[in-house]
Amino acid sequence: MSKTFEKLQPFLDKAMAIETARSLFEWDDQTMAPFEAADYTSKVVGILSDEYMKCLINDDVRRLLKKLKEDKEQEELTDKEKAIIKKLDKIYEQLESIPPEEFKAFNELTIVAGRAWNKAKKDNNYEYFAPYLKKIIEYKKKFAGYRVKKGQKPYEVLLGDFDECFGIKELDIFFDKIKKEIIPLLKQISKKSDDIDKSYNFLTYDVEKQKKFCKYLSGYLGFDFNKGVIAESAHPFTLNLHNHDVRITNHFKENNLESAIFSVIHETGHALYEMNIDDSLTQTLVGTGTSMGMHESQSRLFENIIGRSEEFWTPIYSKLVETYPENMKNISLEQFIKGINKSEPGLIRTEADELSYPLHIIIRYEIEKAIFSGEVDVDNLPDLWNRKYQEYLGLTPTNDSEGILQDIHWSFGEFGYFPSYAIGSAISSQLYAKIKDVMPVNDYLKEGNITPIREFLRDNIHKYGATKNTTQLLKDVTGEDFNADYYVEYLKDKFEKLYGL
Amino acid sequence: MSKTFEKLQPFLDKAMAIETARSLFEWDDQTMAPFEAADYTSKVVGILSDEYMKCLINDDVRRLLKKLKEDKEQEELTDKEKAIIKKLDKIYEQLESIPPEEFKAFNELTIVAGRAWNKAKKDNNYEYFAPYLKKIIEYKKKFAGYRVKKGQKPYEVLLGDFDECFGIKELDIFFDKIKKEIIPLLKQISKKSDDIDKSYNFLTYDVEKQKKFCKYLSGYLGFDFNKGVIAESAHPFTLNLHNHDVRITNHFKENNLESAIFSVIHETGHALYEMNIDDSLTQTLVGTGTSMGMHESQSRLFENIIGRSEEFWTPIYSKLVETYPENMKNISLEQFIKGINKSEPGLIRTEADELSYPLHIIIRYEIEKAIFSGEVDVDNLPDLWNRKYQEYLGLTPTNDSEGILQDIHWSFGEFGYFPSYAIGSAISSQLYAKIKDVMPVNDYLKEGNITPIREFLRDNIHKYGATKNTTQLLKDVTGEDFNADYYVEYLKDKFEKLYGL
Repeated sequence: MSKTFEKLQPFLDKAMAIETARSLFEWDDQTMAPFEAADYTSKVVGILSDEYMKCLINDDVRRLLKKLKEDKEQEELTDKEKAIIKKLDKIYEQLESIPPEEFKAFNELTIVAGRAWNKAKKDNNYEYFAPYLKKIIEYKKKFAGYRVKKGQKPYEVLLGDFDECFGIKELDIFFDKIKKEIIPLLKQISKKSDDIDKSYNFLTYDVEKQKKFCKYLSGYLGFDFNKGVIAESAHPFTLNLHNHDVRITNHFKENNLESAIFSVIHETGHALYEMNIDDSLTQTLVGTGTSMGMHESQSRLFENIIGRSEEFWTPIYSKLVETYPENMKNISLEQFIKGINKSEPGLIRTEADELSYPLHIIIRYEIEKAIFSGEVDVDNLPDLWNRKYQEYLGLTPTNDSEGILQDIHWSFGEFGYFPSYAIGSAISSQLYAKIKDVMPVNDYLKEGNITPIREFLRDNIHKYGATKNTTQLLKDVTGEDFNADYYVEYLKDKFEKLYGL
Repeated sequence: MSKTFEKLQPFLDKAMAIETARSLFEWDDQTMAPFEAADYTSKVVGILSDEYMKCLINDDVRRLLKKLKEDKEQEELTDKEKAIIKKLDKIYEQLESIPPEEFKAFNELTIVAGRAWNKAKKDNNYEYFAPYLKKIIEYKKKFAGYRVKKGQKPYEVLLGDFDECFGIKELDIFFDKIKKEIIPLLKQISKKSDDIDKSYNFLTYDVEKQKKFCKYLSGYLGFDFNKGVIAESAHPFTLNLHNHDVRITNHFKENNLESAIFSVIHETGHALYEMNIDDSLTQTLVGTGTSMGMHESQSRLFENIIGRSEEFWTPIYSKLVETYPENMKNISLEQFIKGINKSEPGLIRTEADELSYPLHIIIRYEIEKAIFSGEVDVDNLPDLWNRKYQEYLGLTPTNDSEGILQDIHWSFGEFGYFPSYAIGSAISSQLYAKIKDVMPVNDYLKEGNITPIREFLRDNIHKYGATKNTTQLLKDVTGEDFNADYYVEYLKDKFEKLYGL
């Protein structure tokens, strides 16, 4: 280890410890903490957040970082150390550019804006939320302005915070392809939506049995219960303290069989990523998944491509039928596969099927782009939203709660995040094409053998943590840059077959 | 707030935040964390512990503390601030006296000693543990030596860490009284142990039903589920993040009805203390129960004096019978009350009944006193232990695992802790005598009305947190100093009646 890096290490260790504590508080808040704890606990978390900033952003670290970026020092660093320095530099770029008092004011604003969004959504009253959204956007424009490079658009700064490999240019190409190919397909399919009967899915399914089956599924995919736990929360999520403590949550609906099943498969995909990060990287700044998009590719690979395939269910479908014999005994595997893949355009992103999902993302992306280029102002957002839903999905929201107010993200200033979901889906198709090339994956799935897939992902993606970025990982594993054709082909192939087009 | 105290506040706030995080990790470790997490998480907790020390023990705080102890500054402080300064001064007295490298070496020793104890207990091999115990005792003697005041014995330094109000003099008087009165009573009763049949207790009791009933019991006593949660762990315990987040655990045995019931009543007693600490004190150095003894008085008041009384069970016994009709339908309330109070001397402290319990404590106290006065050496501890068990309880351990190796405490250097349990029992009797004076407590219990008792404890004990010490609290609420006569009378009265002596 270089001597300069050695001096940096205690600061990094302390930051890691505080960040791990913050993560545990977040987990606890979602899964366990009593209702009235929030106000008092938020004081604790606020102090820890301040401490995290202080131990990374200070004169000592600034000086060490500057030195470590010099060519001579770089020569002495390992790849891991270089990646850590790059990440730290990015943190400095993000945080140092913003005057602390503005950052604080913004954080305070997001708390009231979050509450305002909740109220507005409940009351179906966009006007109530609009002034808060205006202020949030002003801050985000200002903050992006501090960091924008020559020739860069402000929105690209925000996109870069979620994945440095995807700017407006890349996303425009990607999304234009989707729009061109998927919108017409979706229109054809929506005429045939009655062809698939999935009424079985909405019968009564005992929740305790769902829990047991979902736990089985997670273990079947490779979730290691010595290194992780499953709990319940309102919305399923994955959180890791380090690579030996990775946690997922699930939620259960008595009248919806699919909901918990595909949630647990999705979160298990995220969890496998974090569990398989190399021991030498965990508890460092690069000891986690490299980007939102790459993370989402892992969850969606398992949830959609594998988890909704006939091959995957072939060896285990009987177990599901045995769990709910009364509801399922007359539902054939074929009918079940059709049911879990049924496509029906809807207004709500989180309930969207695999085919219509990317269109929900494109709408948000285009609106965000318009916001930050100044082409639309906050008062006109509901109109823009509704027009796009009509154009792309053939539906118009009947109110703002199921329209412009449906997602919480903007209320805390998360612009540039949504594309990650679609990037993830596309990457999962590209990766799966490679997996199919190198192993008889359908045979493995039919034998109930997930191990080769998991090991492929571990050895080519997971273990590297954030030492390689999305593009580097993709290139190293597939030999190609990001290529959305795989995704479009996958969707067309699957849904044309499903609906006999 | 005094200007000097104001300067101290950020250090205290940061220490509080880190300590709260450490508590959450402890909770999580006992209730939730996956098996393999420990090694990685302990790195995080180690760094947080160091940070806690650093933010309290440093030149700035030392200087502020010194100034705040001056008469002129003291005049400007509120009672709460004075109590915080006193507590901080005590922390300095405990920690500053010990050279950091010795403290570190000791902490490392306790980890290996803990493992050695585990192995020794499992293998029933005291010789294996003895060398570790010797080292632990050497350190504790040395550390006490650094802090011992003129005329004070080293063991008193250790006792003072758990309760400043109880030294050797007070404990000798207390325990002599117990020995004189309780040993003969126990001998009489042990001849009549067959008089009470509690075989019903060891039938099969569905664990899910136990959980439901125990949750009901906790709420019945006043546990506020908006400010607390119940989880499961190997050994029941109470832990608070602050007064709006107080957590208890329970454990369940399918073939023992009492175990979970009295555990949950006990932990609820602890929880009520922490939940009722005043909002102005929580998240400060004095925002928790004042001493181990006073805490234990609250748990034992509910567990033993209230929870094993006929009046308490009168309104709710039918609910227990309805929960387990097959096992309980022929067990009368009278028989149940006899069952839960049955006294039978045994070798294991944690399984001891209310009457024989203090004798287990006295044995440990006398042995610890002998260790620190140099009257016994480590190799002779098993003999001393066994002789005392024969003398006080009429039983001799058949092996060291159920003898000298039975408690984990000494392996991590906890000497002076055990007396708190007996002090707690005695205080609970003294408090209950006062409660009986000021309210018709038996009528309340028979009506199922716990509120007046809880409010009495809140207003006279709980709300003060650690701003008053044990003696001050006792004196203010009962008008008396600690007086063990109430305890002896309570035990004699109860058990003589129970066994018709």
